[in-house]
Amino acid sequence: MSKQKLHLAMIGSGFIGKVHSNAFRQVSHFFDVPYELQLRVICGRNRDKLQGAAAQWGWEEIETDWQAVTARKDIDAVDIAAPNALHAPIAIAAAEAGKIVLCEKPLALSLEEAKSMAQAVRRVPNLVWFNYRRLPAVAFAKQLIEEGRLGKIFHYRGLYLNQSGNDPTKASGWRYKRSVAGTGATGDLLSHLIDLALYLNGPITELNAMTHTFAPGRDVDDAALLSVRFANGSIGSFEVSRYGVGCQNRNTFEINGSKGMLRFTLDDMNRLDFFDATETPDLQGIRSIPTTGPNHPYWQNFWRPGHPIGYEHPFIATLADFLHAWARQEPFHVNFEDAVAVQRVLDAVERSATSRNWVRLGKDS
Amino acid sequence: MSKQKLHLAMIGSGFIGKVHSNAFRQVSHFFDVPYELQLRVICGRNRDKLQGAAAQWGWEEIETDWQAVTARKDIDAVDIAAPNALHAPIAIAAAEAGKIVLCEKPLALSLEEAKSMAQAVRRVPNLVWFNYRRLPAVAFAKQLIEEGRLGKIFHYRGLYLNQSGNDPTKASGWRYKRSVAGTGATGDLLSHLIDLALYLNGPITELNAMTHTFAPGRDVDDAALLSVRFANGSIGSFEVSRYGVGCQNRNTFEINGSKGMLRFTLDDMNRLDFFDATETPDLQGIRSIPTTGPNHPYWQNFWRPGHPIGYEHPFIATLADFLHAWARQEPFHVNFEDAVAVQRVLDAVERSATSRNWVRLGKDS
Amino acid sequence: MSKQKLHLAMIGSGFIGKVHSNAFRQVSHFFDVPYELQLRVICGRNRDKLQGAAAQWGWEEIETDWQAVTARKDIDAVDIAAPNALHAPIAIAAAEAGKIVLCEKPLALSLEEAKSMAQAVRRVPNLVWFNYRRLPAVAFAKQLIEEGRLGKIFHYRGLYLNQSGNDPTKASGWRYKRSVAGTGATGDLLSHLIDLALYLNGPITELNAMTHTFAPGRDVDDAALLSVRFANGSIGSFEVSRYGVGCQNRNTFEINGSKGMLRFTLDDMNRLDFFDATETPDLQGIRSIPTTGPNHPYWQNFWRPGHPIGYEHPFIATLADFLHAWARQEPFHVNFEDAVAVQRVLDAVERSATSRNWVRLGKDS
Amino acid sequence: MSKQKLHLAMIGSGFIGKVHSNAFRQVSHFFDVPYELQLRVICGRNRDKLQGAAAQWGWEEIETDWQAVTARKDIDAVDIAAPNALHAPIAIAAAEAGKIVLCEKPLALSLEEAKSMAQAVRRVPNLVWFNYRRLPAVAFAKQLIEEGRLGKIFHYRGLYLNQSGNDPTKASGWRYKRSVAGTGATGDLLSHLIDLALYLNGPITELNAMTHTFAPGRDVDDAALLSVRFANGSIGSFEVSRYGVGCQNRNTFEINGSKGMLRFTLDDMNRLDFFDATETPDLQGIRSIPTTGPNHPYWQNFWRPGHPIGYEHPFIATLADFLHAWARQEPFHVNFEDAVAVQRVLDAVERSATSRNWVRLGKDS
Repeated sequence: MSKQKLHLAMIGSGFIGKVHSNAFRQVSHFFDVPYELQLRVICGRNRDKLQGAAAQWGWEEIETDWQAVTARKDIDAVDIAAPNALHAPIAIAAAEAGKIVLCEKPLALSLEEAKSMAQAVRRVPNLVWFNYRRLPAVAFAKQLIEEGRLGKIFHYRGLYLNQSGNDPTKASGWRYKRSVAGTGATGDLLSHLIDLALYLNGPITELNAMTHTFAPGRDVDDAALLSVRFANGSIGSFEVSRYGVGCQNRNTFEINGSKGMLRFTLDDMNRLDFFDATETPDLQGIRSIPTTGPNHPYWQNFWRPGHPIGYEHPFIATLADFLHAWARQEPFHVNFEDAVAVQRVLDAVERSATSRNWVRLGKDS
Repeated sequence: MSKQKLHLAMIGSGFIGKVHSNAFRQVSHFFDVPYELQLRVICGRNRDKLQGAAAQWGWEEIETDWQAVTARKDIDAVDIAAPNALHAPIAIAAAEAGKIVLCEKPLALSLEEAKSMAQAVRRVPNLVWFNYRRLPAVAFAKQLIEEGRLGKIFHYRGLYLNQSGNDPTKASGWRYKRSVAGTGATGDLLSHLIDLALYLNGPITELNAMTHTFAPGRDVDDAALLSVRFANGSIGSFEVSRYGVGCQNRNTFEINGSKGMLRFTLDDMNRLDFFDATETPDLQGIRSIPTTGPNHPYWQNFWRPGHPIGYEHPFIATLADFLHAWARQEPFHVNFEDAVAVQRVLDAVERSATSRNWVRLGKDS
Repeated sequence: MSKQKLHLAMIGSGFIGKVHSNAFRQVSHFFDVPYELQLRVICGRNRDKLQGAAAQWGWEEIETDWQAVTARKDIDAVDIAAPNALHAPIAIAAAEAGKIVLCEKPLALSLEEAKSMAQAVRRVPNLVWFNYRRLPAVAFAKQLIEEGRLGKIFHYRGLYLNQSGNDPTKASGWRYKRSVAGTGATGDLLSHLIDLALYLNGPITELNAMTHTFAPGRDVDDAALLSVRFANGSIGSFEVSRYGVGCQNRNTFEINGSKGMLRFTLDDMNRLDFFDATETPDLQGIRSIPTTGPNHPYWQNFWRPGHPIGYEHPFIATLADFLHAWARQEPFHVNFEDAVAVQRVLDAVERSATSRNWVRLGKDS
Repeated sequence: MSKQKLHLAMIGSGFIGKVHSNAFRQVSHFFDVPYELQLRVICGRNRDKLQGAAAQWGWEEIETDWQAVTARKDIDAVDIAAPNALHAPIAIAAAEAGKIVLCEKPLALSLEEAKSMAQAVRRVPNLVWFNYRRLPAVAFAKQLIEEGRLGKIFHYRGLYLNQSGNDPTKASGWRYKRSVAGTGATGDLLSHLIDLALYLNGPITELNAMTHTFAPGRDVDDAALLSVRFANGSIGSFEVSRYGVGCQNRNTFEINGSKGMLRFTLDDMNRLDFFDATETPDLQGIRSIPTTGPNHPYWQNFWRPGHPIGYEHPFIATLADFLHAWARQEPFHVNFEDAVAVQRVLDAVERSATSRNWVRLGKDS
């Protein structure tokens, strides 16, 4: 049972790099993946920090020049966990060198950039780390929707709030600079909501957006409000903010349809709320379903029913699904093309907020 | 459509007297009751306070001698909202005078007293204000149990906590004196739990109890813990305390059966939690059912679905059911005999706590 | 202590008429109001229904011609609980006859109509039944905001969802016809959200709105989404729908400020959530405050701490505050002018939804 | 920075073996532990299953004879993840061979056995996997109690319910056989509650217990109810059941003291509820504190504030604390002596349930 080895390089050594390293280490413990991962090199700017991360997670080597990494012959896959502005140059260089490319979200600084990245990776296996799709609760929601349990969809509602913007200790990082981050709350938070909405409810056809920056002198948005229309006839509202005081990491969606309702919040990520409007009226109520099993997505991979998983597990499941899809030559999502669809919405948000007008979204807009 | 008049006297002018007065005033507004209530006389010790209450609620007269009240020919019904030690003398005098008798809980200071009261009222319509049975959520729970929705019952769990004992401003009232109150948390709080348990889960066959008094020098119990066996084979636990810091008025029960679970808390009294263990496993979850309708008990009497009722409404429903039962010559519950059954359990609690032994409960013990 | 009598007429005999009747009956039981209310005449179209309502609530007479009512000399105050299209003609006639005017929300079918009504009642005491301001939780939220507990406000978020539109048994009533209701979810639900937002967070300076009708052939809106800017620099989002399947009556707001957060939901109306961002970080969490006392608004009028009130109690408090204000010659809110401010926002919503543009709100727009 | 190697053997390959393997793999990723763990051999009865587990988690060798394992010279530490009946023979053999001993809970089949095990390991580093102490919420609760935030303790309340007994697919395992498991719900569930109670609230001085078996023919308890007195003057109630239908894994405690209340439930394990009774009355409410940071126990080891951890993380923290304590020659808890204290309570439970009497607990009983 000797598996093919997959030699990895990771560029980035911050928080999300830790999350990716964990996924690389853990994937074979929970999934029977068809490859044996080799953590060859971790790349970043600070040599001391790199040495610490390498020792902690077992990266064999450290490197401070990402171009040296993408040029190496002994690397099969490049994982991008660097600040947003580096996603495009690294992804394109890696793809041109024939590497598998994994990239943290949001994909790019702009729609144009995203498109060129997707073009660059079109011949190599590629992944974007929109991790929330693989939360058991979210994957189960998808299944219930596809079974028709919600009937005709009327409303989609997404909310993602944290309070980082109100915290003076955080507000100086790269996420608050347009040149490095591209956008603020929209790229950071709204991108997650949009990916889930496109996954669960299909394409958005038009939107109206407002963005706002609370901090004087900051050149990225702190908050955004959206009204949208979906191709399936439903309407949607989205709100994101880094000034949602009281919320450390509140990521929620709610979907109302003619036959029922689904509701999720990351604060309670091992559960999914379901309302069945076809039940006899006096027994109707929102039920809180623990999604740790039995029979929920990934329930046999992790723990037992009633034993919660944590923030990192959907990253592990994402990686496992990617490796399986690649081995079977099957399509994998979220790939760069899917992330372009998210970026197209973010781009429309920016245009609508600037023009103060509704913006239509076409497949090629 | 001229209805028979019913001339009422109420003895007591404290908080619960306000609640009863409200029920007398409101019952015809929400229920088509067969009598027209006349609020003739309110009786208490403090003339100023009585005048205020009479003006507020429309009692025609005030009186400071309860024996004068029970002796009056123009009174049809006597409602007892006085401290516990007065329940027996008033109820017996009123019954002997042929009055309808309504009495606040707990019925009596002792089982013996309760039995003599029940004996005294056996020929007159009588009611004990165990109000919680008429909460829509509780009445709906009863209905679901009778439909067999829980299957065979395994567990009954009752908890009633407040923090009054820890509040120096409250601890000097009559409820903290054995001579007036009989017991402490057991009569005040446990009596409610036991009435609901007997109603929802049937007779208790044996119990083991522990009581405790936290405040030095206080001669009533502040808290009690019970383990019980029910006649239906289930086991039960009960806990009450006036030192449940954090809880203003937390009255809960939970019932686990082979086919499902029910859970209620007074903190959220317009809802009932239900778990259906016969549902397909991946859709099982505790559902929170709003019990304001449609089709829930009393839903057409009060407001509309989704419009909550308050603390006072089950008192109104209790009175309405009593008046209807009387008019139809049908049995009404909770009557004095039912309250004797509660008192029998409270008596066993005291004996078990004193003897530190299990106590068996017979029908005639 | 003989009080001045106030002779009332009520026009309307539906659900909200029941709620008003209850307030008229109950106000003197919970508040020491300076007037004695006389329920003289209830007016509607269906004589049988009127007779039932009169018997139930003690209205002395019934009447089917509202113009006869407003013309009567023996009536001091006219309460309007009729469908929206009748608000203006009745209010104007009553005001011209010198009556006190109380009117259900939304005030009018249009901003123009609302202004003319406000003009008509300018010399008589007047009230609009925006009941939610007098929920203890809401009044307490106002108090905390005024104390500066939230600091600088960043976000206001209002949501009001029910599922009436998805219920075929309901969708034929007058609320679904433009000629009688004026609008759909906006007048019915959004008006409540806007009144609370103006009360708690001050004026709105501009907005962008989208409305949607799900039911074919229906000529009122079923849902609306708004993005707004407030004069205090905060931004707001509002969403209302009659297709919020899973929600019987979910009316919520959340306010995020630099020092804290407040959150309310009508599903749990005896509580207010508060987050104190000035607390030491490891003890920060959203606290659920029971607003039944001690020291909360109206807590001495109704029951005891931990004893919940119901849907009807804020109506009673509204009436009590109105009567007191009138007796003291003090301003009362919500009055017709306040309701014009709400209508101004509803008008802007309609204009924005039609034009698909942002609309600015001036004091005189 | 080359660390001392620690050569591990694990005996057992079921669910809990997976949890332990994960802890061995993950500990160095989240904690800077002073040893390098070598996963040398996994031992069990089923060779195929062992090979799978070894491949999955990287155990170098497999073995089916545990005595061969404890006899090996190249093993430093033996981890016991086997059924309860094997804990004593393995632990004693391993200790006699000078190995470090780690053992799953409950420690033993009986108090006598537990004492002999503690005696056997007294000279080697030892650990019992009572994992819940290292939940951040629990460790934070301990800290708040030690700071005096609860004042004088009145009540301790523990509840642990699952529904495994009502599930025919589960009821045939070794956990349902006295010869292998020793007890049923008491060893499985109550042991966890008691360990936490002793940790958070100190010694129990006497108890009264009732146990019950619902399934005909089963020779272990399915449920237990306890009333207890603690040395600190507080009273406690405990309830455990495998027939808690509706609950997959509900493990809760609540502590009421003169100054506040703490409440925890495993269903929401990244949070701790806290009520501060010293706060101004109108602002008092139960607050839900996310315990993922900042400044909560272990918050820097795992993810970021608002990013939940899962079931496995407290096992990792337990192992890390053990390794650090050993390296520093400091005491570690939970050790075998601590587990004897738990077993002493379980023993008293059995004696009380059999004798139907209160049982006193002495240090040497």
